[in-house]
Amino acid sequence: MKTVIIGGSATGMGVAAKLKRLDEKNEIIVIQDKEYVSLGACGIPYFVGNNFVDAEILIARQVEKFEKSGISIINNTKATKIDFENKCVDFEDEKIFYDNLVIAVGAKPIIPDIKNIEANNIFTVNSKEDGIAIKNIISDMSKVLVIGSGLIGLEMVENIKHNTKAEISIIEKADRVLKNLFDEEFSELVEQEIKSQNINLYKENEIMEFIKGSDNKVCGAKTIKGEIIPCDVVILSIGVSPNTDFLKNTKLELENNGAIKINEYCETNIPNVFAGGDCCSSLSYLYKNSKTFYLATVANKQAKIIASNINQIKSSKFVGALGTTIIRFFDLELARSGENKMFIQMNNIETKEILIKDKDHTNYVAGQQELWLRIIIDCKTKEIINAQMIGKNKSVLRIYGLVGLIWSRTKVNEALEQIDLPYSPSFSRTTDIIHIALSKLI
Amino acid sequence: MKTVIIGGSATGMGVAAKLKRLDEKNEIIVIQDKEYVSLGACGIPYFVGNNFVDAEILIARQVEKFEKSGISIINNTKATKIDFENKCVDFEDEKIFYDNLVIAVGAKPIIPDIKNIEANNIFTVNSKEDGIAIKNIISDMSKVLVIGSGLIGLEMVENIKHNTKAEISIIEKADRVLKNLFDEEFSELVEQEIKSQNINLYKENEIMEFIKGSDNKVCGAKTIKGEIIPCDVVILSIGVSPNTDFLKNTKLELENNGAIKINEYCETNIPNVFAGGDCCSSLSYLYKNSKTFYLATVANKQAKIIASNINQIKSSKFVGALGTTIIRFFDLELARSGENKMFIQMNNIETKEILIKDKDHTNYVAGQQELWLRIIIDCKTKEIINAQMIGKNKSVLRIYGLVGLIWSRTKVNEALEQIDLPYSPSFSRTTDIIHIALSKLI
Repeated sequence: MKTVIIGGSATGMGVAAKLKRLDEKNEIIVIQDKEYVSLGACGIPYFVGNNFVDAEILIARQVEKFEKSGISIINNTKATKIDFENKCVDFEDEKIFYDNLVIAVGAKPIIPDIKNIEANNIFTVNSKEDGIAIKNIISDMSKVLVIGSGLIGLEMVENIKHNTKAEISIIEKADRVLKNLFDEEFSELVEQEIKSQNINLYKENEIMEFIKGSDNKVCGAKTIKGEIIPCDVVILSIGVSPNTDFLKNTKLELENNGAIKINEYCETNIPNVFAGGDCCSSLSYLYKNSKTFYLATVANKQAKIIASNINQIKSSKFVGALGTTIIRFFDLELARSGENKMFIQMNNIETKEILIKDKDHTNYVAGQQELWLRIIIDCKTKEIINAQMIGKNKSVLRIYGLVGLIWSRTKVNEALEQIDLPYSPSFSRTTDIIHIALSKLI
Repeated sequence: MKTVIIGGSATGMGVAAKLKRLDEKNEIIVIQDKEYVSLGACGIPYFVGNNFVDAEILIARQVEKFEKSGISIINNTKATKIDFENKCVDFEDEKIFYDNLVIAVGAKPIIPDIKNIEANNIFTVNSKEDGIAIKNIISDMSKVLVIGSGLIGLEMVENIKHNTKAEISIIEKADRVLKNLFDEEFSELVEQEIKSQNINLYKENEIMEFIKGSDNKVCGAKTIKGEIIPCDVVILSIGVSPNTDFLKNTKLELENNGAIKINEYCETNIPNVFAGGDCCSSLSYLYKNSKTFYLATVANKQAKIIASNINQIKSSKFVGALGTTIIRFFDLELARSGENKMFIQMNNIETKEILIKDKDHTNYVAGQQELWLRIIIDCKTKEIINAQMIGKNKSVLRIYGLVGLIWSRTKVNEALEQIDLPYSPSFSRTTDIIHIALSKLI
């Protein structure tokens, strides 16, 4: 059985490795547009921030290692067309036939249509080359402009701050940072941290055009409000979209955002064609709607499911994701899981919510820190549908507990209020913040 | 309605405060054997370790504050007898009648019958006075002997180590430390830490007699193996037992260990007599057996339940405890929840278990540490019945997630393997240790 996989990142290489483990006789060919495979893109900001020196650490497993285990990798090659009828993938001047096809092409950074966006000191945060290029120049820069204040944007800001003396500015289209992931109170605390780090934040603002200096480099950015933000390097992190342009106008069903539609078995609408990871829309766990998650954790899980289903050992189902996220921003830590307010409002879900501001542990053990928790429950089901935390010193790892409860669809009632959470003076208070929140939601 | 409460610690004062909040007209009288009430005994080791200077920080709320809210406290007085027939408590030469009685007398340290145990440099870790007495002399001591290596023993060891230059010895009856709470592998790591801190550990050993020097002080301890351990102060922390001697041979039903039997409403076998906290046996969550927990978290929850039931707003039930525990020992952190191996063996529960040794987060973010996780499931129900972790840097706060799953009685299967736990490089690896463990338990 011959499986062709388009894309050599988390999903693609995950499928390849698991298929080989399940049955050594599986013939596996990966078509990859880069030299390397299995890039851990989440590490790029930390590479830029000089947490490590060797860019190869970003590569989870080298091409040679995969090939040694019998997985063929055709690298530096882009699949250009798929003939689903004849089960054939075109790349450059060649064709390759498959029994099963896995599309795992991931997502690509969104590049807005702004004048001079093609300048060579504007970078996305997507590839090993991006990381190397940014790191090579960043320490000499004096003015950095980061566009977008999502997870990647903020991770880049922190790491650049650690590694340079540059003045950093962030420009954000929305009225607050991290808007899709966290509620106002949480954004506000992050914005306070941005301010205290002497980072400029432009909100409800956008770049209208980049101003070019010499050498195809921009030296400033003009906003829609008319300000000029001087910059000698620009980090573009306004989001990503499914990397599926070459699949448009084919028989493969796509969502409006370009994401490949898959069912719970990670099957597309075309027989023997599977897809997973950032190029797909997937099941959202709680309300069974469809959503594109752009999370490595989802990609990894879908890889296992695809491999199991190709190998037909058992029928393996993706049960959904919660969009659980955790991020450090300087000393602040944020974590969240479940549906956001926008989804709740759009679907007219009647909710009850609580915001608790407490401390992470007893006042008499050094290092007590503030800890905030929001929990939202669905009034009809009494289940937790959203949890958000902000704190310090890893106290937000309590999100694991909330994910456990959300995942288990445990009802918030007097019994749950008694959940036996751990207590000792260095870790918590006798009444944990989760207990306080639950007691107010009954 | 007049409620008399015997005992002014977590349960007693918890009941008092909540009863008053529920209805200001509730008449509440607390009989307390000490000057103060609401001692946070968990803080004593940290006071000894000089985490804070003022012993009053150990007191959650002063007598005056309670009295201001209309709660009467008769302190420095011991209840000596209860006339359940006539609803009357005797103390000193007085009597007090009640409509409802709450027995919340807690636990007392076990004092073994060893020659010279009454010497005045042997201390338990039970009262504010204990804490003050130990702290007053500890910094001048050169040889400290800690008897017992349970939670309190280890917390005392760490705090004394931080605050003195004394040579510290631990003597433990069992063949390893923390035996009732953790499996061998975990004890072993703690014992390595004990060794690396230059602390002497005597295992499978007991004190046969204390050797007296001058001034009613012991200067050494002779073990059953014949060694003499020199010491100028002894910390006795071999455990506690319900403080119910005055209730023996009454109509109140007690367990063999002296714990008061209560039902899920925290009612004893005698009408209008409630009990809660360390002096009771309570419901164990998973298998609905009876157990004495000696945990502040249980005491607090039972206090709320007793107050609700006395006030008859609604019938409030204690649904059980898991014995969840967390402890820091120098840089090591341990957490556990659920039934231990002894219970599993005694009840012939067929189990499957896994021990995973992994890292807490990615290798490229500074501070990566080892992290161990054991999960035990009941083969019949597929539910997790025990979780144990050891790690550093708060990574064991993942126990919250496992408590969430244990509490929810979520079955370990392919769906649970996909639980959407958070990932980012500073906090975890893309495949979290919990995912690894679950995948091996399916």
